[in-house]
Amino acid sequence: MTRRIDLNCDLGESFGIYRHGADEEMMPLITSANVACGFHAGDPVVMHDAVASAAAHGVAVGAHVGLPDRLGFGRRYMQLSAREAYASTVYQLGALGGFLAAAAVRMQHVKPHGALYMMAAEDADVADAVAAATAAYDARLAVYTLPGSQLAVRAQAYGLAVVEEFFADRPYGPDGVQMFGWTYDQLGGPAGTADRVAAMLADPAAGSVETVCVHSDTDDAPALVRAVRDRLHREGVTIGRAGTPDAG
Amino acid sequence: MTRRIDLNCDLGESFGIYRHGADEEMMPLITSANVACGFHAGDPVVMHDAVASAAAHGVAVGAHVGLPDRLGFGRRYMQLSAREAYASTVYQLGALGGFLAAAAVRMQHVKPHGALYMMAAEDADVADAVAAATAAYDARLAVYTLPGSQLAVRAQAYGLAVVEEFFADRPYGPDGVQMFGWTYDQLGGPAGTADRVAAMLADPAAGSVETVCVHSDTDDAPALVRAVRDRLHREGVTIGRAGTPDAG
Amino acid sequence: MTRRIDLNCDLGESFGIYRHGADEEMMPLITSANVACGFHAGDPVVMHDAVASAAAHGVAVGAHVGLPDRLGFGRRYMQLSAREAYASTVYQLGALGGFLAAAAVRMQHVKPHGALYMMAAEDADVADAVAAATAAYDARLAVYTLPGSQLAVRAQAYGLAVVEEFFADRPYGPDGVQMFGWTYDQLGGPAGTADRVAAMLADPAAGSVETVCVHSDTDDAPALVRAVRDRLHREGVTIGRAGTPDAG
Amino acid sequence: MTRRIDLNCDLGESFGIYRHGADEEMMPLITSANVACGFHAGDPVVMHDAVASAAAHGVAVGAHVGLPDRLGFGRRYMQLSAREAYASTVYQLGALGGFLAAAAVRMQHVKPHGALYMMAAEDADVADAVAAATAAYDARLAVYTLPGSQLAVRAQAYGLAVVEEFFADRPYGPDGVQMFGWTYDQLGGPAGTADRVAAMLADPAAGSVETVCVHSDTDDAPALVRAVRDRLHREGVTIGRAGTPDAG
Repeated sequence: MTRRIDLNCDLGESFGIYRHGADEEMMPLITSANVACGFHAGDPVVMHDAVASAAAHGVAVGAHVGLPDRLGFGRRYMQLSAREAYASTVYQLGALGGFLAAAAVRMQHVKPHGALYMMAAEDADVADAVAAATAAYDARLAVYTLPGSQLAVRAQAYGLAVVEEFFADRPYGPDGVQMFGWTYDQLGGPAGTADRVAAMLADPAAGSVETVCVHSDTDDAPALVRAVRDRLHREGVTIGRAGTPDAG
Repeated sequence: MTRRIDLNCDLGESFGIYRHGADEEMMPLITSANVACGFHAGDPVVMHDAVASAAAHGVAVGAHVGLPDRLGFGRRYMQLSAREAYASTVYQLGALGGFLAAAAVRMQHVKPHGALYMMAAEDADVADAVAAATAAYDARLAVYTLPGSQLAVRAQAYGLAVVEEFFADRPYGPDGVQMFGWTYDQLGGPAGTADRVAAMLADPAAGSVETVCVHSDTDDAPALVRAVRDRLHREGVTIGRAGTPDAG
Repeated sequence: MTRRIDLNCDLGESFGIYRHGADEEMMPLITSANVACGFHAGDPVVMHDAVASAAAHGVAVGAHVGLPDRLGFGRRYMQLSAREAYASTVYQLGALGGFLAAAAVRMQHVKPHGALYMMAAEDADVADAVAAATAAYDARLAVYTLPGSQLAVRAQAYGLAVVEEFFADRPYGPDGVQMFGWTYDQLGGPAGTADRVAAMLADPAAGSVETVCVHSDTDDAPALVRAVRDRLHREGVTIGRAGTPDAG
Repeated sequence: MTRRIDLNCDLGESFGIYRHGADEEMMPLITSANVACGFHAGDPVVMHDAVASAAAHGVAVGAHVGLPDRLGFGRRYMQLSAREAYASTVYQLGALGGFLAAAAVRMQHVKPHGALYMMAAEDADVADAVAAATAAYDARLAVYTLPGSQLAVRAQAYGLAVVEEFFADRPYGPDGVQMFGWTYDQLGGPAGTADRVAAMLADPAAGSVETVCVHSDTDDAPALVRAVRDRLHREGVTIGRAGTPDAG
């Protein structure tokens, strides 16, 4: 049976006059878009445009929920009570959901951003709050997260589909993915990026990975994702969404 | 046929540690709650709690959408492009809709706040943007606004139900309601407030008014709304929601 | 020689329409005011009024610098780089300093707020950044902090005067002061508050304490600070600023 | 006598991860920098770096005070009370002044940004508030503004030096400068920009103009300012600050 790999991308991270990320170049190359929801990045007009662009390209949309820290782009760890984590997840899901409702498009998934991504992966309380909020908002949503994360555990407990994620444009070491503090040189360009994906595909321990991420704001992101696409094609992998009920 | 009057109240206007408005006292006395959506006031935890309280009291919920100006509490006029007005309305509708979805409660209406209320009443472009956003988000929503406002006109054009509103706790003069710059002395206390409502009920020109507003942050708001309720009962008016398809 | 104790108070924590703290009642009862600088609380108009009120009452003014987290009132721990901690301290010192310059009043001290207070007490990097920023802005400023804190150490290294602080309205246990998660019942009312101060005065280990804090937003804050004043008078302690070059 | 023209530039408009404007290329080409103060743009780290860069290049620093509207980049007109305009000007002057104090550099001037620039030019109340705040903060500051503006009138009333400004990178028509809604095509590139400056120099009505502005975020800004510099040199104009007491 052919393996399917979804290509997801963080985007919609512009704000006001500030442009950020190669959104328009990435959209034709990906199958799922993680759209910032106005906390760590994005604003209502940016969200509207990101949803419209995703719909035009047939790209599925997920909520890229983040910490309420625009100055730090959601990358600074921050203490959140369970109530705060729950309510701020519902708020962001709903806000993005507004644009999806207006566009008559269903939300596919939720993926926390930056420090919240790591907090939800490592901290059971944050994971529970994010999973509970997602299940309460829409039980059909999938959760994108690292394999074996606390969020994966809690999402399954709430009956949510979990989509395990691999980061093509982040260095991996013995301790796993290095989300912060890396440099572009470590990525090895398009070839290194594609090699990382190929190694993941060959790794039996990564057999359940269903989605691969390239960020819209990594240098040369379009070239990186093109290299990943070529390698997936060469490896006989189908590019497309999986792990959600309506995947073809 | 008995006249029905809905009692609506702006609430959910606290923020972080800051408490504002007599929400808990008002909730048992009203039939519709206009919940702030995090732009001019409110935050995710406050919105969650307001929706839970409204649901517990059987109070219908509407989105109190405002300008992106927390410092000015949404009361300062501010230039907005049509795109900005449209997208920020969708965003706020969706954000509140998230909490309603999580509580399995349907949103009843939208009512702009403060300066946006007046801008949508007077400026056809802002009115069109708010109405278009509302219709795109959920065509079953009612729009609360002043009789004869631009927003009433545009909402009808989009097929939305319009609920005409009277302000019990704002002075009325020859030019209509005085939203800003009034003093508590002008209100005449509970008796004056009830008298204003009675005069409105007796005014043929106000025959289409379906809802009366008392703000949660007016001084003595619970006493004012109790006086309004007593007067409505004495006048043989039923207190309840009207103007929406599911009104009893 | 008579002991001198300064009475300091966190205030200026209102924001926009939101009122917070018994500022006007506290001002005649204290000798030093820690004015919020617009990050965790306060806004330009609130800061202007707090400075004017302090000047009218002959109360010295310090900068109550906080984390950039208005929603959390600066009470949530948050990751800050040394650069961010340094620059956000300079920014807040300067912003308050603007109102002091306009009022022709000299700034007396800096005191971090909430989570930043604890981070600067415990984390040498944050402490160094806050102290370096303070020294760079105005080397005559005193630093209010816990005895033996990292901030005390770093402030001394930069040649700044350190004023050791005792919290009258926070519970003290074997591990020291409990800044978060306490309840009003633990305080023991005005009598308990005064007793805590008396015990501190009698404790040789606290012999270097020069200032006592009562927060403007503690319940019954004016009654608490009055009880402290009475006890200080009864103990023969002079109430007034110390530890700064110009103290009388 | 040789005419002197100051070249000023709006910069320091980045925010968090968002980069905006050709600051580093502009700094060696200008004589005065208008540094954003964290309201419409900028943040503490950006301000620190802008001041350090200006100091390194011997460029004078002014406060580019703006409306509290980061989402709109301070370009949306917004209702401000006189108290709000005054206090938010003092706040921003002070905040930038913090970095100047830490760098032991004197502030040279204040120049409002965007919508506040136009409001202060046209509205006597806003002009008075900005001028009063500037005079209260530091009476030696110069005010950059349009010739004949309300701000020029009020600044003079407070005894402040007024520096009249010409915009090299904005179209001028019969109604004066067009601050918003212009397109790059209207500028005519470096040649058109230099021609506009030359025409201004030859215009007796503009004889009191002392400074010329090129914005750091105009397309090709470094090329435009180089063309202006070449033209000024060819016209025998000295490039340098004027209108302040310490100008050489």
